[in-house]
Amino acid sequence: MRVALDLLGGDAAPEAPLEAAAGALDAWPDDLSLLLVGPSRLRREERTRFARGRVAWLAAEESIGPAESPALAVRRKADSTVVRGLEAVRDGRADGFVSAGPTGATVVASVLTLGLLPGVDRPPVGAFFPTATGRALVMDVGANVDVRPRQLHQFAHLGSTYLRRTLLIGRPRVGLLNIGVEGEKGGDVIATAHGLLSADPGLHFVGNVEGHQIVTGACDVLVCGGFVGNVLLKFYESMAGFVLEVFRHAGVGEGGELGEALRFLDYTEYGGAPLFGVDGVTIICHGTSPARAIMNGIRTAADCAASGFASVTRTSLARMREGGR
Amino acid sequence: MRVALDLLGGDAAPEAPLEAAAGALDAWPDDLSLLLVGPSRLRREERTRFARGRVAWLAAEESIGPAESPALAVRRKADSTVVRGLEAVRDGRADGFVSAGPTGATVVASVLTLGLLPGVDRPPVGAFFPTATGRALVMDVGANVDVRPRQLHQFAHLGSTYLRRTLLIGRPRVGLLNIGVEGEKGGDVIATAHGLLSADPGLHFVGNVEGHQIVTGACDVLVCGGFVGNVLLKFYESMAGFVLEVFRHAGVGEGGELGEALRFLDYTEYGGAPLFGVDGVTIICHGTSPARAIMNGIRTAADCAASGFASVTRTSLARMREGGR
Repeated sequence: MRVALDLLGGDAAPEAPLEAAAGALDAWPDDLSLLLVGPSRLRREERTRFARGRVAWLAAEESIGPAESPALAVRRKADSTVVRGLEAVRDGRADGFVSAGPTGATVVASVLTLGLLPGVDRPPVGAFFPTATGRALVMDVGANVDVRPRQLHQFAHLGSTYLRRTLLIGRPRVGLLNIGVEGEKGGDVIATAHGLLSADPGLHFVGNVEGHQIVTGACDVLVCGGFVGNVLLKFYESMAGFVLEVFRHAGVGEGGELGEALRFLDYTEYGGAPLFGVDGVTIICHGTSPARAIMNGIRTAADCAASGFASVTRTSLARMREGGR
Repeated sequence: MRVALDLLGGDAAPEAPLEAAAGALDAWPDDLSLLLVGPSRLRREERTRFARGRVAWLAAEESIGPAESPALAVRRKADSTVVRGLEAVRDGRADGFVSAGPTGATVVASVLTLGLLPGVDRPPVGAFFPTATGRALVMDVGANVDVRPRQLHQFAHLGSTYLRRTLLIGRPRVGLLNIGVEGEKGGDVIATAHGLLSADPGLHFVGNVEGHQIVTGACDVLVCGGFVGNVLLKFYESMAGFVLEVFRHAGVGEGGELGEALRFLDYTEYGGAPLFGVDGVTIICHGTSPARAIMNGIRTAADCAASGFASVTRTSLARMREGGR
């Protein structure tokens, strides 16, 4: 598997992506090669760092910043790392693309370059939430502020397929984020989505999941709109630091020991989630990703590509549409 | 101050409210009397428990359960504790009402019985989130699934007024829950609300607040729609138990000590928040409230009544409308 890596994406670029590249090549010597996407200057500076055989370079002189309008920036910056990297995936020169750059730009560029899979209105971004029993894939976490019921239905299929085919989870339980257990709660959009999910034999729908049931592991895929998903994700990411600070302040426990026990809450352990619903593999890492997280993102890209993620998703979506929506 | 207490509200009723009543009378002997609202049978059973001088009884034979339609139940059950208790507030026989019964029924009954204050479309429910620097009042946490920009503007005034006048916080910082720091993020409703809040000189608006900034104490009042607020509240309430379970499982720390340090995360420490925007004092407690939480709710009701909560809110809303919306 050859993974294209955005060397200019993320707050710690280019150091973090470069370090992640070196780490990934060391860690997975047998099944991974990289296409490093970045400015020619960087290629010259780093030429001694990477052994030639498993690393190729792709020149891209521009980067897209978090303050730019995604749609405008992607259209104007044809020589950006995001656009060049995704073109490499589209043209078969890479099997997947990994970036810690701005999510919006990566989403837009992925849609424009790779295209949407049939049956997807807009691509959702997923994120893993650690739970008492493992982890839950929460989607969307930010790409779709306003969602329609049929989009939530799509998210359920996209997430289920990923867990089943790439992560090999037998029969993923799908939950619908809501403010009560009854089907009619939460407003019209959610209530209609509840009907669609309930009626779909291709999903293992376990019903509404309330806020306090997420960390207990009530479901494997949690379907929600991008606004609430994004707020929850960021809130959860702030928890470990907050709790450790509380203990430090209270003078209880041994900091290092407690921190170690909470390390599974650290998003860098997961390192990126696929962008769902596009015809190819795009892995979106957190903007603040350190090398470790990006390295895990590279692993995720390789796994997605190896499992034929895009093509099995296409099949699953076709089955959903035949289900009579 | 005389507080009316719903003896049939909450999962642990009537024991928890009865115990809360006894505790409150003990704790605040100088400024509190109670109007206990419940069935005649209970009055007979408990007649030896309460000294007559500071306790009066109000007969109400029915209760409203969590599975009932709030609007229907309130209309049909004229002899329910919620309806009778709120009538007592309306008629001046009590200064406030406290219930751990179903939120929806209490909201509906409060609107029908006490009436809305001018300038309020629908009443929001607030909840306190513990933060690194104190606590933030998050509203709405469940009464309004779909909100309009002007409702978010109303929430800001209602919350600010409460903090300023009842809790005596000098200049409450108002934040708008969003998925980015830029004003235009989060969709049309949020972006329009951002404009209303920014333009209002009667508010100390500090801008958008993202998920990870809540527990750092970025604001004193966090304005949001009822869906995301409810999900966040329940998620947060599940955190202390989850974290302690993680430590227990990892065999680190000393459970009692860690639990004690996290006790401030326990909602029973706060015990109910006012229903905002109605012409009177209604305090809504969690359905699972133990006696301690309901007792704190009684305290909150007395404080609200003493501060003239409803009338100062009326003035604040009038000023908001004059502000030129």
